[in-house]
Amino acid sequence: MSFYALILAGGVGTRLWPMSRKERPKYLLDPLGSGSSLLQQAVARVEPLADSVWVMTSAATVAAVARQVPQAHVIAEPSARGTMPPLAACAALIASMDHDAVIGSFAADHVVRDEDAFVRAVSTAVQAAGDGSLVTIGITPTGPSSAFGYIKVALSANARRQLLSLDQSGSSAYPVQAFVEKPDAARAAAYMASGQYVWNAGIFVARADALLRHIHDLVPDLDPLTLKLGAQLSERMPRPGRGSRSMPLPGAAGVEAFSSPDIRRMWDALEPSVIDIALAEPLAEQGMVKTVPVSMGWSDVGDWAAVTALYAAAHGTDSGTYQHRTDPGEVHDDDSAAPVFRQNAEGTFVLGSHKPIAVVGIHDAAIVDMDDVLLVVSTKDAQQVKDIIRDVDRAGRSDLL
Amino acid sequence: MSFYALILAGGVGTRLWPMSRKERPKYLLDPLGSGSSLLQQAVARVEPLADSVWVMTSAATVAAVARQVPQAHVIAEPSARGTMPPLAACAALIASMDHDAVIGSFAADHVVRDEDAFVRAVSTAVQAAGDGSLVTIGITPTGPSSAFGYIKVALSANARRQLLSLDQSGSSAYPVQAFVEKPDAARAAAYMASGQYVWNAGIFVARADALLRHIHDLVPDLDPLTLKLGAQLSERMPRPGRGSRSMPLPGAAGVEAFSSPDIRRMWDALEPSVIDIALAEPLAEQGMVKTVPVSMGWSDVGDWAAVTALYAAAHGTDSGTYQHRTDPGEVHDDDSAAPVFRQNAEGTFVLGSHKPIAVVGIHDAAIVDMDDVLLVVSTKDAQQVKDIIRDVDRAGRSDLL
Repeated sequence: MSFYALILAGGVGTRLWPMSRKERPKYLLDPLGSGSSLLQQAVARVEPLADSVWVMTSAATVAAVARQVPQAHVIAEPSARGTMPPLAACAALIASMDHDAVIGSFAADHVVRDEDAFVRAVSTAVQAAGDGSLVTIGITPTGPSSAFGYIKVALSANARRQLLSLDQSGSSAYPVQAFVEKPDAARAAAYMASGQYVWNAGIFVARADALLRHIHDLVPDLDPLTLKLGAQLSERMPRPGRGSRSMPLPGAAGVEAFSSPDIRRMWDALEPSVIDIALAEPLAEQGMVKTVPVSMGWSDVGDWAAVTALYAAAHGTDSGTYQHRTDPGEVHDDDSAAPVFRQNAEGTFVLGSHKPIAVVGIHDAAIVDMDDVLLVVSTKDAQQVKDIIRDVDRAGRSDLL
Repeated sequence: MSFYALILAGGVGTRLWPMSRKERPKYLLDPLGSGSSLLQQAVARVEPLADSVWVMTSAATVAAVARQVPQAHVIAEPSARGTMPPLAACAALIASMDHDAVIGSFAADHVVRDEDAFVRAVSTAVQAAGDGSLVTIGITPTGPSSAFGYIKVALSANARRQLLSLDQSGSSAYPVQAFVEKPDAARAAAYMASGQYVWNAGIFVARADALLRHIHDLVPDLDPLTLKLGAQLSERMPRPGRGSRSMPLPGAAGVEAFSSPDIRRMWDALEPSVIDIALAEPLAEQGMVKTVPVSMGWSDVGDWAAVTALYAAAHGTDSGTYQHRTDPGEVHDDDSAAPVFRQNAEGTFVLGSHKPIAVVGIHDAAIVDMDDVLLVVSTKDAQQVKDIIRDVDRAGRSDLL
């Protein structure tokens, strides 16, 4: 059984503005100063598990993505259509060559501190997917967050209070009762207290053939696309042996398949849809979804509050540097970093480049000094950066977005 | 009786760093966006009162000062020696030509909102100086500040509680009992409650001949300098008629007097001294000092907290712009100002130039974005900017100071 990792590199990550821009989306950046971009980390994380790594991204970023992760097969989507169509397309391409293949779909802009736990959880999910289930990785909540969707585990009344004490090492899969949207604060606290909920990190694992069957049943609008892609690839390529672990699919085939005018037309005509709603929720109702709870130091690096906390935890300091490069392939360089001077400024993250920065009496904030724009934001209001984005756009300064 | 205004343009104003620098001291700048520098405002403020305006400054800034205030007589001090030697020197120069002259000495980097009250108070002081007293302007406190020295008014026990209800329009002079140093918070509150104290704004008015007499009595170290300066000017210049109101002293004479090697040698050999300690305190003990209490919207623009409050009061907004010019003669320009975007950022002052700035959830702070360095400081910790200056210096980055 081969495992194919699909990384969905989409979205700007606007709450990390002004580091993230339309032309330099979050996944191409390294906000935590690790030395590689979030996308490069995502690819490196699945490489030990996957026979082949695929990345789907927009036409505007495909060149930068290919430069950053030359080891992956990079496909440019004709247009942005959510997460469901890319997974369906990859399932069709892969299933046409490898009927025993298992596919995992992953975000390109999350971080995982405990990579061993990640590998264990995904391996468990791959095994659990053998019966045709859709398997998701469930993150054991570290607090009552309103920023994430939740997955409700189907546990007996007796077992409910014990989920948090259940194996969280990523070694076991549990049946899923339902997916629930981002809750308000009160509901999040109740979920946390119940011990029956885990965070939905957007990681889904399934057999390629099972995925196509579920898509046929639940998202039939995608059938023409998947059928056409499968047929197209079968026509053009010599078919490799099934289950051949050592033979990666040539990325050129996928890229070429997407360059066909028929495919592009079909793709552009699709309604956008996401895996969670189109597939995971209805399958959960049918008892066809499992989750692998795990504590693996996961974060979606969702805003500057997250960056501030993660950076301090990783580096034991509150200052990062970022060189604003024209080539997003080069993401980080401390060599020419300007100094940061602090007085009475605990909990304040400073991200600068060539210009010295002094901070006095400012706590729990992020200072993001890019060459063309400066942001100063308190961590408690980090989500309001989206309002600034709106104001910048209204002011006719889309050049800054 | 002629009135000569001496403006002492010295000091960097380090607590307004990074706007103020060694090469661009506070008085050459316009932190409040008024359209003219603090020095230009200081000169304009005394012009309606003075027959002649003199400015003493350092050799490093004399050219910039002369460009900013071409109407004043600008003298370069051979070295920085505090406020007492410049006043003594000017008294000697002026008295040698005009025995009835009254001199007032003023700071170059303060602001006064109510200029009518200022003119009234100084006029009252000039009249009160007629008997040979040293007269100071006393600012009616608006709060128990620890940032200023205080002047204790000599009032009878009955009158003490009434000082704050006395004439504060600058129309009356009162005898001074003592000058007191910057108090701690508890003492400042007691001063405020007593109603017997006013702030020392560093403005001193006296007859030139009385000044020379007091200096001879109390600061005899200055005698050689004052005698030499007076003699030198008398030798070189035709002496104008005494009390000639319409005849300004030629600035060239003062400049020339200070270029003499003898004067420079005498000056450099002086111990630094300040008017308050060398002259005002001992004269107060002798009952020879008066003060004119006045409420005139005075501020020493001492730090970014003061700028934040003053700017908002003057403009009804929290955002200023400042173009970092190589010529300090040009101080302000809103034309090419970059936008400031705010969300939930009341009480935060933003001073930028060409680069857009976004502020989210930051209150009661100042953001000062210069081309070569950025400062973010909370108003409550504005005094700690001096600690940053020290750190910047220790880090070998005196280029930023």
